[in-house]
Amino acid sequence: MCQLLGMNCNTPTDIVFSFTGFATRGGLTDHHSDGWGIAFFEGSGVRHFVDYQAAVSSPVADLIKRCPIKSQHVIAHIRKATQGRVSLANCHPFVRELWGRYWVFAHNGDLKNFMPQLDGPYRPVGTTDSELAFCYLLQQLRRRFGDQLPALAELTPVLRELTAEIAGYGPFNMMLSDGSALFAHCSTNLYYIVRQHPFATAKLSDEDLSVDFAEVTTTNDRVAVIVTQPLTTNETWTQFQTGELKVFVDGDVVE
Amino acid sequence: MCQLLGMNCNTPTDIVFSFTGFATRGGLTDHHSDGWGIAFFEGSGVRHFVDYQAAVSSPVADLIKRCPIKSQHVIAHIRKATQGRVSLANCHPFVRELWGRYWVFAHNGDLKNFMPQLDGPYRPVGTTDSELAFCYLLQQLRRRFGDQLPALAELTPVLRELTAEIAGYGPFNMMLSDGSALFAHCSTNLYYIVRQHPFATAKLSDEDLSVDFAEVTTTNDRVAVIVTQPLTTNETWTQFQTGELKVFVDGDVVE
Repeated sequence: MCQLLGMNCNTPTDIVFSFTGFATRGGLTDHHSDGWGIAFFEGSGVRHFVDYQAAVSSPVADLIKRCPIKSQHVIAHIRKATQGRVSLANCHPFVRELWGRYWVFAHNGDLKNFMPQLDGPYRPVGTTDSELAFCYLLQQLRRRFGDQLPALAELTPVLRELTAEIAGYGPFNMMLSDGSALFAHCSTNLYYIVRQHPFATAKLSDEDLSVDFAEVTTTNDRVAVIVTQPLTTNETWTQFQTGELKVFVDGDVVE
Repeated sequence: MCQLLGMNCNTPTDIVFSFTGFATRGGLTDHHSDGWGIAFFEGSGVRHFVDYQAAVSSPVADLIKRCPIKSQHVIAHIRKATQGRVSLANCHPFVRELWGRYWVFAHNGDLKNFMPQLDGPYRPVGTTDSELAFCYLLQQLRRRFGDQLPALAELTPVLRELTAEIAGYGPFNMMLSDGSALFAHCSTNLYYIVRQHPFATAKLSDEDLSVDFAEVTTTNDRVAVIVTQPLTTNETWTQFQTGELKVFVDGDVVE
């Protein structure tokens, strides 16, 4: 299956350290070499990089490791194709616009016999079950809330309902962000950590690399990292419960 | 004003030569340093790069010059802000999905008092007149053709009508592609060239660089390049008429 990585922060932060370990799983320490992608919010805008080369050998992945792009909401994905051939149109994360905001979505899992009726404006371009689920999610949100972005407190229970419905068709570990919050739903594998003052040194599990976060942060910084498998060996990651949807805002769990 | 560059080919071709000259206009040979962007179709998928740094100093622009990405439909833009501040959300090209295809759009010009009613699913994320025009275009196409992608022969006259309507509000040089055709509308400045066998050497006007296309092509290749100002000094570029919409498919003008 695929791998997911998300980051949500209270101040724009680069993801170079986490992405370096994560990208290693795309073809080197793991067997996810059917493409990868990453999306960074910068304000309401999005930088979106996808590639169907293995992340470990992609020149774009190399650029991201070398050039620190600072963002408050990042979603990355390394693909092991289960449904849909290896092509650019099938690489996660996917991006669509709803309510004048970009929405970014990535999925780990495999939905069986998931054939929702799409009669709204969102249609898959590629052939994955994941993009189909994303289009269905946005269609249902638009149907429920009409033309207006709802408050987070209204949006969250509806997302809980919809993700539970989709997870009825198979594993649905997913991350979704509109640039103001990051939503993560766990079916099988999802872990998170909140790093904040006092920061310590973290050691990557996939590569011989450590970083002392105290040297690169201020005391006010707070960063949540969410991932399908813990990225570091010397920190305590919290495992999501099956069926749990968590909401991250400003680097912390709010729901 | 901004600069536009489009490429449409019958076989996937890299845009390194044209982009090298074009990117020079983003801060070096011209004053367009409020960001830039480029989108490449690969099949139905899109690689989309935007940056609010000047193209001439952007590490992502540098990557594109060094790594030849091959595509049949490319749209690039260098921004000189007229409406909307310098931010990622205001960088062209913009991407949206309609009828299960990605649509890529970029605009050169300045629309005044353009305030269309947006009551469909497409809303601007940024604050440019350009993204507003793109949302309006897609809304009207969806309204006209419903849920089904029309044939090119049906689509083209509707696009002519819509672009003429929008051009009533100010200069509307624009490029639009859905990965099967590239549409270009001229209000003030647009030129194109079709390169095909026998290929010759072309010399960039913005940089001391030549390329002998005969060495990098086959006799079957055909490439149309469309741009706001001719890129080479030793080729004959055809100027668009004011109000003209041309359609490029497989490297040639079809309408």
